[in-house]
Amino acid sequence: MEAYLDNSATTRCSDRAFALMQKVLLEDYGNPSSLHMKGVEAERYVKAAREKIAKTLKVTEKEIIFTSGGTESNNLAILGTAFANRRTGNRIITTAVEHASVANPMKFLEEEGFEVIYLPVDENGVISLKDLEEALSDQTILVSLMHVNNEIGAVEPVEEAAALVHEKCPKALVHVDAIQSYGKFRIYPKKSGIDLLSVSGHKIHGPKGSGFLYVKEKTKIKPIIYGGGQQNGMRSGTENVPGIAGLGEAAAEIYEDFKEKQDRLYALKERFIREVTTIPGVSVNGKTGRDSAPHIVSVSVEGVRAEVLLHSLEDKQIYVSSGSACSSNKPAVSRTLKGIGLKQNLLDSTVRFSFSVHTTEEEIDYAADVLKTLVPALQKYTRH
Amino acid sequence: MEAYLDNSATTRCSDRAFALMQKVLLEDYGNPSSLHMKGVEAERYVKAAREKIAKTLKVTEKEIIFTSGGTESNNLAILGTAFANRRTGNRIITTAVEHASVANPMKFLEEEGFEVIYLPVDENGVISLKDLEEALSDQTILVSLMHVNNEIGAVEPVEEAAALVHEKCPKALVHVDAIQSYGKFRIYPKKSGIDLLSVSGHKIHGPKGSGFLYVKEKTKIKPIIYGGGQQNGMRSGTENVPGIAGLGEAAAEIYEDFKEKQDRLYALKERFIREVTTIPGVSVNGKTGRDSAPHIVSVSVEGVRAEVLLHSLEDKQIYVSSGSACSSNKPAVSRTLKGIGLKQNLLDSTVRFSFSVHTTEEEIDYAADVLKTLVPALQKYTRH
Repeated sequence: MEAYLDNSATTRCSDRAFALMQKVLLEDYGNPSSLHMKGVEAERYVKAAREKIAKTLKVTEKEIIFTSGGTESNNLAILGTAFANRRTGNRIITTAVEHASVANPMKFLEEEGFEVIYLPVDENGVISLKDLEEALSDQTILVSLMHVNNEIGAVEPVEEAAALVHEKCPKALVHVDAIQSYGKFRIYPKKSGIDLLSVSGHKIHGPKGSGFLYVKEKTKIKPIIYGGGQQNGMRSGTENVPGIAGLGEAAAEIYEDFKEKQDRLYALKERFIREVTTIPGVSVNGKTGRDSAPHIVSVSVEGVRAEVLLHSLEDKQIYVSSGSACSSNKPAVSRTLKGIGLKQNLLDSTVRFSFSVHTTEEEIDYAADVLKTLVPALQKYTRH
Repeated sequence: MEAYLDNSATTRCSDRAFALMQKVLLEDYGNPSSLHMKGVEAERYVKAAREKIAKTLKVTEKEIIFTSGGTESNNLAILGTAFANRRTGNRIITTAVEHASVANPMKFLEEEGFEVIYLPVDENGVISLKDLEEALSDQTILVSLMHVNNEIGAVEPVEEAAALVHEKCPKALVHVDAIQSYGKFRIYPKKSGIDLLSVSGHKIHGPKGSGFLYVKEKTKIKPIIYGGGQQNGMRSGTENVPGIAGLGEAAAEIYEDFKEKQDRLYALKERFIREVTTIPGVSVNGKTGRDSAPHIVSVSVEGVRAEVLLHSLEDKQIYVSSGSACSSNKPAVSRTLKGIGLKQNLLDSTVRFSFSVHTTEEEIDYAADVLKTLVPALQKYTRH
């Protein structure tokens, strides 16, 4: 039996998304900028994807900018806001547990002279609104928060935070990294006061190399890539039509029968946690109920190194991540796990199980069963 | 009959490239940063693509950085060089006829305080090495030249230019936009003294959303996208594995039986030019022999507006571009056509026919035949 439980790293492309990509790659392969029929046809796929995505967010089509993925979306949101609003102010607020695609643009902005405030999180990985309020100043131009933490599934209070920001700093923009939450929660940026929202295609069964940034109408940001002026000049370059078509289809698909999918994921999560927490030395980080993401379970195992556990699970065809898989193989201490104050001895003993709509009860039970025999064996081995 | 003669705008994805993409999207869909087998497997596709591409250029694998396409490659080369070498100098040299994905990053750099020199071109669209030599100064950090002009197929003397730059300004880097030349000419950056070379996937029957930048070992450039540190930190973001795999395959494929393919394209070009230049009022811009690109024919038609001709050809299922299709529908006077000193009345009467390895003699003959009846008819119509 095989259990792919690394869906927060990446997901399989859906058959529906793939079918559309195939048609675009082999038949309707025009350049949307071409004035003839083949170009118009290609443009139609882009427009259709925009419509599908806009519908899931209850926003307008023109507020969607297609990018090459979540990392570019985060960079465009953060660098684009900073450089467009430099004269308005110098302060940017984010959290201490952001993904590298937020944390590293922030580091670059610090080198460029911006002041970046990193909000701490509590033992569940959640920021405090009081901390946020104290960090706000009339110099604040951007507040960037992740919606769902990619390592432990913590859910940040983005709606309350956005309300606070708009009340105290009317000029500041609110950016939400929704890369781990889009398709797992219903998100309505307008209702929630979100100005910019980043999404990645390959986390929701769309293709890698696709993503988008929602940019609220009339929001002032600067492009980071210059050229032929595609997408209203906000993102030049021939549109990745097959990728965009696949992303649009995946977005529409993931929100069909959404409630059932979400309930199913929570049920899987609950089932998995119930079983693994019966194993001595095993604990689950962060919240675990409906106030956490439905698809991520961060598991710490006393006395077993994450890498050892990961490869032992791999031997049983169970695929998981140690920390975050999006950080290019480089083993580094997780800012999230440090941020929640995880005990020193568990920092390097934590793995992430992440589910998708394709994950089955059988896979969950199989993984839990394997852990029940594997963990005591590995603990014994370590002790000797 | 249908004749897709807009291959410089974009090409159909090759069946081989597509087959590999299908496998990656549906089966081997891991994240290259994941430490388990599914990640290792995905990483292997990236490595294989790197090898295939490096081989075509006779460079090493680690000198290839994958991007989301030609526009990003050009931006990374130009902005990356400018910001990494700001302290060395302030001057950048390019030509007056670059594609928007070079011209617009240059415009941005001017706003940032860099001095950009735009070299003029002669009636064939070619720069003069004397002009280049005069523009070089000890402040020069970058010389960026296109290899093949996207509108008229002019070939710039990049090798001679690179030699001159390295002789006079040892600190300056040479960037070549090879988006219209890779796959049409053999290009060996090391032999030619090229430090940075941009390529786009969808111009060579690879997928849209893919491309790469060759960066000579030890060349100092800054990334433009920050995040998880993929590709040695030069281009963060989960690698677009299906796109990269498709690009690698397309690159390998286009250079198989290369000489025959190139000869065939030149023969098609010659045949087409021979026929269309028999039509009164029709002229071909720039050089037309082996000293021009094998796949681009820029045709001016006296007394017929480009858009009218384009749509009349479209009615006969012949697809071409007016000027460059990569500039997002926006009708603007072509810098290239102005640059070569095209007569005012022809600036808006010029269309581009561009071929690919899939173009047939039948398509060429069909297009020429249609033009022979269409052009006099449209000219007549205009005169009344």
